[in-house]
Amino acid sequence: MTTIRDVAKHAKVSVATVSRVLNKKGYVSKEAEEAVLQAIKELNYQPSSVARSLYHKTSGMIGLLIPDISNPFFPELARAVEDVASTYGYTVVLCNTDEEIEKERKYLQALKQKYVDGVILTTSFLPYKEYEQLNIPMVALDRYVNENIPLVASQNKAGARLATEHLLEQGCQFIAHIRGPKGVTPAEDRYEGFKEVVEEQEVANIVISADFHIDEAQKVTKALLETHPTIDGIFASSDVVAAGAMKAAHMMGKRIPDDLQIVGFDGIPLGNMLVPSLTTVEQPIYDLGAVSTRLLIKQIEKKPLDTYRYEIPTKLVVRETTKGGENSENAEHYRCR
Amino acid sequence: MTTIRDVAKHAKVSVATVSRVLNKKGYVSKEAEEAVLQAIKELNYQPSSVARSLYHKTSGMIGLLIPDISNPFFPELARAVEDVASTYGYTVVLCNTDEEIEKERKYLQALKQKYVDGVILTTSFLPYKEYEQLNIPMVALDRYVNENIPLVASQNKAGARLATEHLLEQGCQFIAHIRGPKGVTPAEDRYEGFKEVVEEQEVANIVISADFHIDEAQKVTKALLETHPTIDGIFASSDVVAAGAMKAAHMMGKRIPDDLQIVGFDGIPLGNMLVPSLTTVEQPIYDLGAVSTRLLIKQIEKKPLDTYRYEIPTKLVVRETTKGGENSENAEHYRCR
Repeated sequence: MTTIRDVAKHAKVSVATVSRVLNKKGYVSKEAEEAVLQAIKELNYQPSSVARSLYHKTSGMIGLLIPDISNPFFPELARAVEDVASTYGYTVVLCNTDEEIEKERKYLQALKQKYVDGVILTTSFLPYKEYEQLNIPMVALDRYVNENIPLVASQNKAGARLATEHLLEQGCQFIAHIRGPKGVTPAEDRYEGFKEVVEEQEVANIVISADFHIDEAQKVTKALLETHPTIDGIFASSDVVAAGAMKAAHMMGKRIPDDLQIVGFDGIPLGNMLVPSLTTVEQPIYDLGAVSTRLLIKQIEKKPLDTYRYEIPTKLVVRETTKGGENSENAEHYRCR
Repeated sequence: MTTIRDVAKHAKVSVATVSRVLNKKGYVSKEAEEAVLQAIKELNYQPSSVARSLYHKTSGMIGLLIPDISNPFFPELARAVEDVASTYGYTVVLCNTDEEIEKERKYLQALKQKYVDGVILTTSFLPYKEYEQLNIPMVALDRYVNENIPLVASQNKAGARLATEHLLEQGCQFIAHIRGPKGVTPAEDRYEGFKEVVEEQEVANIVISADFHIDEAQKVTKALLETHPTIDGIFASSDVVAAGAMKAAHMMGKRIPDDLQIVGFDGIPLGNMLVPSLTTVEQPIYDLGAVSTRLLIKQIEKKPLDTYRYEIPTKLVVRETTKGGENSENAEHYRCR
C-alpha cells in the first residue's frame, strides 16, 4: 500500500509538507502543493481515514444507541439513520443497550475513544451530567433527555387522541388503553392523549400497563377481557401490543371488529401482515431517523439549529380492526394531525 | 483531556517511551515502565483508540454488510453479531447495501480505510477478486461467496425437506412451492429440498417465484389459487412470503388449515404474531450471527479454522397453519434435522 512517505519521496518534499497539503493547514508553496497533488494522483494514494481521524479528532462515524434492534420499531429507524449518514459520508456504529445503564455507559466511552463525531440516543438512562462531560454532539430520538439535547419525536399525544376519537366515532362505549412503561416519554404522552379524550367525552374506560412485548400484551389482554367482557375497544400503545391483544381476542372467540375494535400505534410493517390488518396511528419512523441524523450533522458542522424540539405529525391509518375500514379491502384512509 | 505528552512529562520520560509501554513494543527499562504506568494511573490517561488504530492498523471494529435491516430476518442477526463482537471488545459498523454492487463496493472501501478488523458479508455481488484484494478477514453468512471465505449457513435443503414432508404427512395432495430469487443460494437449496421430496413421493406440485416481499407474495398466491383451486398445501420460501400467502388465502375465503395448509421458513417473531400462528422451519438466526462473529474473530486473531463450511440444523415448528398443530393452543412441536 502506498504510504505518506512514498508520496513525499515522489514529490521530493517532506512528510510534513504532504501532511499540510492533506489537512489543508499551514503554509505550503504553490509548487510543493502541485507536486504533492500530482504524486498523490500518480501513486493512487488514499490517505488513511484513521490518520485523518487522529489529526482532526474526527472519525466520520456516528454512534446509534438503541435498546434492541430486534424490536420491530428500530430497524426502519436504523435504516434511515444509515441512509442519511451515508449521504453525508458518515458510517454508523450500532449499539444495543438493552436499556441497561452499564451497557450504555460502556458504549458511550468506547465511541468517545474512537472520536465518533456524534451520537443519536433512543435510550438514555445516564444522569445528564455524563452526557455533557462526553462533549460529543447528540440528538435525542423519541425520548426526551434534557433541554440542551435536541429532541426529535412524533406528536404522540395528538396521535393518541386520533386513535381514541376514532374508536368513539366507530361506536365504542367502553375503551381500554394498554399503556407502555412508565417514565418512557412517548408512552406517557400517548396515555395523556387517551385520558384527555375519554375525560372530555365522559366515556367508560380502563388503563392497564404492559411492556412492549407480545406475550405480555396477550396475557394482560386476556385477563382484562375476562374481568370486563363488555370492553368493545382497545387502544394499544404499540403495534406489537395490539398484535398480542388480537391473539387474546381470537383465543376468547371475540370477533374483530364486530365484538372488539383495536387500534395500534407505530405503523410498523407487521400491522399490514396481520389478518385482519391493523388500524394504527402511523409514526413517520423513517422521517424520525432521517431528521435526527440531519440535525446531528448540523451540530457536527457547528451550524445553528432553528429549534431544540422537532415534533413530527402522526396519522391514523384505518384498516380492518376497526369498523371504519372493514368494507374496503385495500383502501386505506388517512387522517393527519 | 490528558495527552500522551502529559504522561511523558509527568513520568519524566520521552513520548516515544510512553508509546513503547502502551504498545508493548521495543525496549523500556523497568523503572521507566513503572513511572509511565504510575503516571497513567495518576492522570487517569485513556489512550485514544484512534492512535492505537494507526499504530497497529486495527480499529476494534467489524463491518456488517446486509441487504436491508428492515427485512425482518436481519435485526436478530445484527443483534447476535453485535452481542458477540461486544463481548470480544469490538464494535459493529452497520452497512445496508440494498443488494447494489456500487453501494457494496463503496462501503467496503470505507471500511478498509478505517482499518476495520473484519467483515461479515450477508450480501456479496462483487467479483471474488475484489474481496481478495481488500485483504481483510471475512465470513460469508447465509450466502456462499468463494471457497476461500468461510461460510456459515442453515441446513436449508434439509429444512425444506422437513417442511414438504410435513405437508404430505398432514394429507396434502397438491403442493405449491413459492420459491425465492434465483441465484440466491439459500433459496436454491430450499427449492432443491422441496423438489427431492415431491419427486421421491410422486406428488402433484407447482413451483412459482416471488421475491421476499409480502405484497408480491400475496399477488402471486392469489393468481396461483385462482388458476389451481385444488392446491391444498403451500411451502413458502420465507415467513414474510407465507404471511402474504395467508393474506391471499383469507381474501379468497379459504380456511387455514382446513382448506389450505401453509409452512414458512425462517422462524422470525412475525410467525407467532399471525392468526393462525404460522408453522415454519426455524433457522437458528441468532446462532448464525453468533457463530459467524466468533469465526471472524478467530481469523482476526490468526487462529486456525476447523472447517470453511458451518451448517447449522433447522427445525420444524408446528403451529396452527398446518393440521398437526391446530388442536394445541400453545404447545409447539419440534422436529430437528
